[in-house]
Amino acid sequence: MEIETQLGYRTETGRKRRERTRYKLIEAAARLVAHQGADSATIDDFAREAKVARGTFYNYFPTREDLLEALWAHVGHVPFHRIQQAITVFDDPAKRIVATMHLVAHHADEDSIWGWLLLSMSGLSQVNVDLRAYPTPDLKLGLQSGRFSFNDLTSARDLVVSAVRAMLRARLEQRASDAYVADLARMLLLALGVREPEASELSMDPSPIT
Amino acid sequence: MEIETQLGYRTETGRKRRERTRYKLIEAAARLVAHQGADSATIDDFAREAKVARGTFYNYFPTREDLLEALWAHVGHVPFHRIQQAITVFDDPAKRIVATMHLVAHHADEDSIWGWLLLSMSGLSQVNVDLRAYPTPDLKLGLQSGRFSFNDLTSARDLVVSAVRAMLRARLEQRASDAYVADLARMLLLALGVREPEASELSMDPSPIT
Repeated sequence: MEIETQLGYRTETGRKRRERTRYKLIEAAARLVAHQGADSATIDDFAREAKVARGTFYNYFPTREDLLEALWAHVGHVPFHRIQQAITVFDDPAKRIVATMHLVAHHADEDSIWGWLLLSMSGLSQVNVDLRAYPTPDLKLGLQSGRFSFNDLTSARDLVVSAVRAMLRARLEQRASDAYVADLARMLLLALGVREPEASELSMDPSPIT
Repeated sequence: MEIETQLGYRTETGRKRRERTRYKLIEAAARLVAHQGADSATIDDFAREAKVARGTFYNYFPTREDLLEALWAHVGHVPFHRIQQAITVFDDPAKRIVATMHLVAHHADEDSIWGWLLLSMSGLSQVNVDLRAYPTPDLKLGLQSGRFSFNDLTSARDLVVSAVRAMLRARLEQRASDAYVADLARMLLLALGVREPEASELSMDPSPIT
């Protein structure tokens, strides 16, 4: 029994240590990527920033991409997912698109590292897949119900994603007031076929949702 | 006289050699930046790719940024400037915005290196200044003449720039048909306050302009 307990203790300690090291690497990656972008940071940079040996790195992540995807899953994806959950309180796809715009702005105010991460990781395949996927159900729904009118789902989706990204950059660079955010949301609705004055009315920040 | 001629000859040879080396560095930078992005390439990378010593690099460009700005001036800015010149045949700012969209698509078809350069250099200050500046006069003109209606020049400008950039990326990744390009142009016009069916009519590729 005693031996088994000892073994169990050792396994538990080892697991915890592994988790800590893995987390240290992810944290280091968050700092580096937010500062210098996802493209330029090498495995050596990540290992140096986390104060582990290069060999140790490979015990946790087979490739650079694996670390970046873990980073996105840990740091980037969570608030993004929370925003997507929050907007489900609205049935109208137009309101959802507006609410996303404002929620991304607010979250960037609270957590600028997240904002810069999102911008600098846009080259990563999983990030791009997630970003392109998010407005697609609302755009399809809006088209089917006659709320929106557009010819090409791909171009509509790319316009929404690129407008949110442009707003995020402007917000982080402190060039985007709340009026800027609302106006960009208004222009997106117009682009998707919503008419004035409704586009203006809908474009304001909706009542706080959590 | 003979000494002067010799000196003149030497100076001329030296000048030509310097020009060649400078150009070699710019060419090497174009290849690297198109492949791996502007952020990640270091001075060592540029020198290695151009097959010159690191010390030689500094004889031509005091900093990494100086090389990148020379690259933009040589390779990136010229087609961009030509497109801006070409659209002056249109008086209507709406037509100019549509024509720019299509011309950027066509130029990316002919010269994908230029397209990738434009995308990967977007972090560079001079590139951003140029990109943000280009639609501003047309947007102001359109607003004054009542052709466009929007509340905030900054958000309108960012929407146009980010839509062109999204289209360029999609075109280079061969996801953007001519119909996609036209539809994105149509949505931009709607966003700027042009109504249907005019937005649809104007959004097609205008007759070839050079």
